[in-house]
Amino acid sequence: MTMDASRRILDADVLIEGGRIKSVGKSERGKVGTNKATVLDCSGLVILPGLIQAHIHLCQTLFRGLADDLSLEAWLATRIWPLEAAHTEASIHASAMLGAAELLLGGTTAILDMETVHHTGAAFEALEAIGIRATAGKCLMDAPPPASPPALHEPTDKALTESVDLCARWHGAAGGRLRYCFAPRFAPSCTGPLLRAVSDLAEKAGAMIHTHAAETPLELDTVKRETGHDEIAYLDSVGISGPRAALAHCVWVDNDAIARLARQATNVVHCPSSNLKLGSGIAPIPEMLTAGCRVAIGADGAPCNNRLDAFAEMRLAALIQKPRLGPEVMPAATLLELATLGGARALGLESEIGSIEAGKCADLVVLDLAAPHAQPEEADLISRIVYSAQPADVRHVLVDGRIVVRDGVLKTADVDEVRRTANAQTKRLLSSSRAPRRH
Amino acid sequence: MTMDASRRILDADVLIEGGRIKSVGKSERGKVGTNKATVLDCSGLVILPGLIQAHIHLCQTLFRGLADDLSLEAWLATRIWPLEAAHTEASIHASAMLGAAELLLGGTTAILDMETVHHTGAAFEALEAIGIRATAGKCLMDAPPPASPPALHEPTDKALTESVDLCARWHGAAGGRLRYCFAPRFAPSCTGPLLRAVSDLAEKAGAMIHTHAAETPLELDTVKRETGHDEIAYLDSVGISGPRAALAHCVWVDNDAIARLARQATNVVHCPSSNLKLGSGIAPIPEMLTAGCRVAIGADGAPCNNRLDAFAEMRLAALIQKPRLGPEVMPAATLLELATLGGARALGLESEIGSIEAGKCADLVVLDLAAPHAQPEEADLISRIVYSAQPADVRHVLVDGRIVVRDGVLKTADVDEVRRTANAQTKRLLSSSRAPRRH
Repeated sequence: MTMDASRRILDADVLIEGGRIKSVGKSERGKVGTNKATVLDCSGLVILPGLIQAHIHLCQTLFRGLADDLSLEAWLATRIWPLEAAHTEASIHASAMLGAAELLLGGTTAILDMETVHHTGAAFEALEAIGIRATAGKCLMDAPPPASPPALHEPTDKALTESVDLCARWHGAAGGRLRYCFAPRFAPSCTGPLLRAVSDLAEKAGAMIHTHAAETPLELDTVKRETGHDEIAYLDSVGISGPRAALAHCVWVDNDAIARLARQATNVVHCPSSNLKLGSGIAPIPEMLTAGCRVAIGADGAPCNNRLDAFAEMRLAALIQKPRLGPEVMPAATLLELATLGGARALGLESEIGSIEAGKCADLVVLDLAAPHAQPEEADLISRIVYSAQPADVRHVLVDGRIVVRDGVLKTADVDEVRRTANAQTKRLLSSSRAPRRH
Repeated sequence: MTMDASRRILDADVLIEGGRIKSVGKSERGKVGTNKATVLDCSGLVILPGLIQAHIHLCQTLFRGLADDLSLEAWLATRIWPLEAAHTEASIHASAMLGAAELLLGGTTAILDMETVHHTGAAFEALEAIGIRATAGKCLMDAPPPASPPALHEPTDKALTESVDLCARWHGAAGGRLRYCFAPRFAPSCTGPLLRAVSDLAEKAGAMIHTHAAETPLELDTVKRETGHDEIAYLDSVGISGPRAALAHCVWVDNDAIARLARQATNVVHCPSSNLKLGSGIAPIPEMLTAGCRVAIGADGAPCNNRLDAFAEMRLAALIQKPRLGPEVMPAATLLELATLGGARALGLESEIGSIEAGKCADLVVLDLAAPHAQPEEADLISRIVYSAQPADVRHVLVDGRIVVRDGVLKTADVDEVRRTANAQTKRLLSSSRAPRRH
């Protein structure tokens, strides 16, 4: 499943050299044999471009199942912010390892990640070790309390200085696999000067900007009251727009906002599970695609999903539009595009990942669709992938040509150790945070 | 996870004798050892009542991925009905085996199934062999074409006679594990006399009635035009109501219909994936629960889902209500009730299955929640099951005390053979049906 310009589905070998795809075709098998290259036999399996999720909070993975069935505002104020504030380097590392393990095992090879305010370096260390492709950033919250919670609030200069330092340390690390993004939390918790500075700094560094936008009517009202502008227009006015920006959610966007997102080529990151679970709504994705917007998908954080599963997001993103606009909209093929090519654009890496083509990074997922739930084989292959496949169908995963999952086993970390550490750190977070324990 | 009246979650052993639960408690371990009983070590695992899906079309499993992204009416007329008409005994058997294999591997131990018009005996033979608990029925379509497609239409007497014969043969077979249901397709494709006769015959036989209702506005309009009644009221007037009836969908029900469903204790079977994928809408399940309706869940057929996954249905049934009514509605615990106790009621088996209690059938699912996607362990256990768990987390499955899945492997059929047969039969169906091939 090449996802190349003509969307070819080939019976072919993929030759990898130096972490990149050298060729895709039928002629290489003999050549590989004589060269004593590593051969990963994918006979009868499906090779996909690695799936890309462009809105993830790895720092929240430890909070999964600790904050269910709450509104976004209550969810943030009573659970997520107190738990984020209680994070240490060790718990940030454990949270990133747990989330990245789940992502890789489920076929997600690249993410755009927003960490919390502190200890972002520890997340990068985890991402470096576990081998996922990640663009991650420290969360920025410089608006005075109560717009930002006191335990997470930082002065503008401190927030920016630390961001620049992290960018210098991590942007391009691990052979380019790790990249930095500037990550203002969302308009209501950031000052205008910070947002403008972020736009300039990202431009200078060649880095992405990763934020939330238009997730709830309350957020829109707040921005309107404080700035006099609609939120998408306001973000545009302070430079948070264009191909360098990825805006998660965009649920509450009118025609003007959609036209602006399309005109500026701003990346929209659709998070259907999160938007349902937090009661935010259903983003008008078909309308945005028709208008020419760039759209990617993402699971958001574990506590508002509660999966980090690209297959679940693809399927749900297709299903939720159909009662509103008819069953023909958002066909399966569209979702596979959002989860590959759309994700690549949202990471600013469209020339590097998102399809299986010579010259691109060898980020690949190998699916075994032999289980009963993915039969019959006569079905449309894209339908089998988008509507039926599950993380458990992922057999092998490669990032930069490195086999990070083989036969369903993570090769870059000990999953038992990841689990034990995650559970110990969660216990500590719950005892030290002021978040009320659920159950 | 007992799902008993006080919803106790115990650290306990489950002792099974003669296919039934003898006791649930801590004291039996030594006793079991000396008796040389079979011990299935579930240390560190979660034992659930077997999940129940109360609306399934096993005869459509072979059609998965052959009919995507179409409206319900086009979906039926151009794909599903021609494919159903092309079925033979062999393909019905293969379709039931494939679907039941997926269901058992995913923790569904009991289903309410609607087959097609012909060859229902072959489905029962498959269900007998594979060991799932099933209440299944031949589909009834006696309204003259075009209300029924000519290839599936039957005279009223023929439809009823064959139903009675099948009921005599299969109701209570396999030690009570198999039961018959009378299954008129839906009001527009059945005559009033057939529906009245079904109500009487089901009552006499002590069998369930399984039909579709209020799935689309077009269906409601048709029933209103032809009978002068709202659909739920019409079904009630011909005796398709009460604890003996299970109505799949009920998407388009107003307050009067909801009050009637509640008053009559009619079972509503919620199929959220199907209702989204076919563009039907979102059933007002919270309103029905508030009114006191009995509600179960189901995946419907493979082509309108495309999974037969109780975990996917539980999670989605929770998520889709939240944008409409707030994130607090349909908490995880409610979904677990619908998928166990609600399903048991919809099969008329509330005294036999749906909870882990002494005297009930030993229909059990054993989950291993150790994978990264179900961490941390500190999370609410019900949240982990409803929002995070996947079919791949199912370790063991028991039906009537028989181990049908052990260590994730189906013990009652050879899955490779099930797949090969399913694929061969699908090829034949496609070549012999008049359904246009997709892709």
